[in-house]
Amino acid sequence: MRQRNVKNKEEIIKNSKYFIENPREYKGVWQQAFNNSNPIHIEIGSGKGKFIIENAKRNPHINYIGIEKQDSILALALKKIDQNISNLLFLRLDASNIEDVFDREITTIYLNFSDPWPKKRHAKRRLTSEMFLDKYEKIFKNDNHIVMKTDNKDLFCYSIKTLNNKGYYIENITFDLASLKDEDNILTEYEEKFTKLNNPIYKIEVIKKKK
Amino acid sequence: MRQRNVKNKEEIIKNSKYFIENPREYKGVWQQAFNNSNPIHIEIGSGKGKFIIENAKRNPHINYIGIEKQDSILALALKKIDQNISNLLFLRLDASNIEDVFDREITTIYLNFSDPWPKKRHAKRRLTSEMFLDKYEKIFKNDNHIVMKTDNKDLFCYSIKTLNNKGYYIENITFDLASLKDEDNILTEYEEKFTKLNNPIYKIEVIKKKK
Repeated sequence: MRQRNVKNKEEIIKNSKYFIENPREYKGVWQQAFNNSNPIHIEIGSGKGKFIIENAKRNPHINYIGIEKQDSILALALKKIDQNISNLLFLRLDASNIEDVFDREITTIYLNFSDPWPKKRHAKRRLTSEMFLDKYEKIFKNDNHIVMKTDNKDLFCYSIKTLNNKGYYIENITFDLASLKDEDNILTEYEEKFTKLNNPIYKIEVIKKKK
Repeated sequence: MRQRNVKNKEEIIKNSKYFIENPREYKGVWQQAFNNSNPIHIEIGSGKGKFIIENAKRNPHINYIGIEKQDSILALALKKIDQNISNLLFLRLDASNIEDVFDREITTIYLNFSDPWPKKRHAKRRLTSEMFLDKYEKIFKNDNHIVMKTDNKDLFCYSIKTLNNKGYYIENITFDLASLKDEDNILTEYEEKFTKLNNPIYKIEVIKKKK
């Protein structure tokens, strides 16, 4: 997501109690950061934060971590938190370093409207590339559980293939999420805009049992 | 595919040298019907025959069997054969009886624009239902290999899920076959019409290694 520069972004980030500056220090002990042993769900590319903030509000017995690499967008997400939420944290991190930060402690990964990296030579950078799926293997606690939404047909198609090839089992798949009128579906900012245009949203939910 | 009645259909069918009246007699010995040991590919729901007839012409070292349950459509396919083709046969058969006719001797199954059976209570009748996939297990010779094309988004979505859940590995998947401009793609009659309208054609090719 491209975003115009946000004024005082560094200040907003550093002053937020929801922001963890040195996430590597929590590797393997994230439950300490939340002070409980509830399951931890992460969103890689949390953008402006609506999805993960709403999830955290609705599901107090799940811990949520939003991961975003772009300062300006991260600052917007942190600014958006309008009440005390004890089960929510944000990290500034490039997804390719995710193994440095978590060790077999994640229950669910959300990938919402990730960069499609349309050029073939950039395929590795897609968050569902086999390279990334291999990284995720190391951070899941028990069974792997990934929930992905996108409006990009090609990224979706590519992801079905990589997930299938890596041994994931499809729990749910839909080519038109909006038409399901699922009240439990929390829309991202992007999704909201996109749904209004009546463009289809693709969603897939997969699991992989630990051997 | 609904089809108006074809005059003399029974005569056309019975007089065609490409038609096998009692396919159960060949169970386990289909290579005898072709007089060679080439691989056998079948199309379940061969319709007006264009796909399988063209395949047979292009690939003389593969044996093709078209399977169609509707008399009128089968007659149209048989009438279409305009030259001698030694690697082509047609059967009149309901797919639910497929195990009665083949025994571990098929290399590839083609499913082209199969009836989507949109109602949930009819889901079992879809040619990619788990019930049908179980039947196909018994007719494949070595590895299972299924190639499916459809214009029906819901059937495609459903099929991705059932194929994944039954342990198939996705070799290729596309949400817009026409845009690939693949010269090896032989279009069915239906596909030709549909592609002209610029409607997307979905295609998936899957394999499953014998254990």
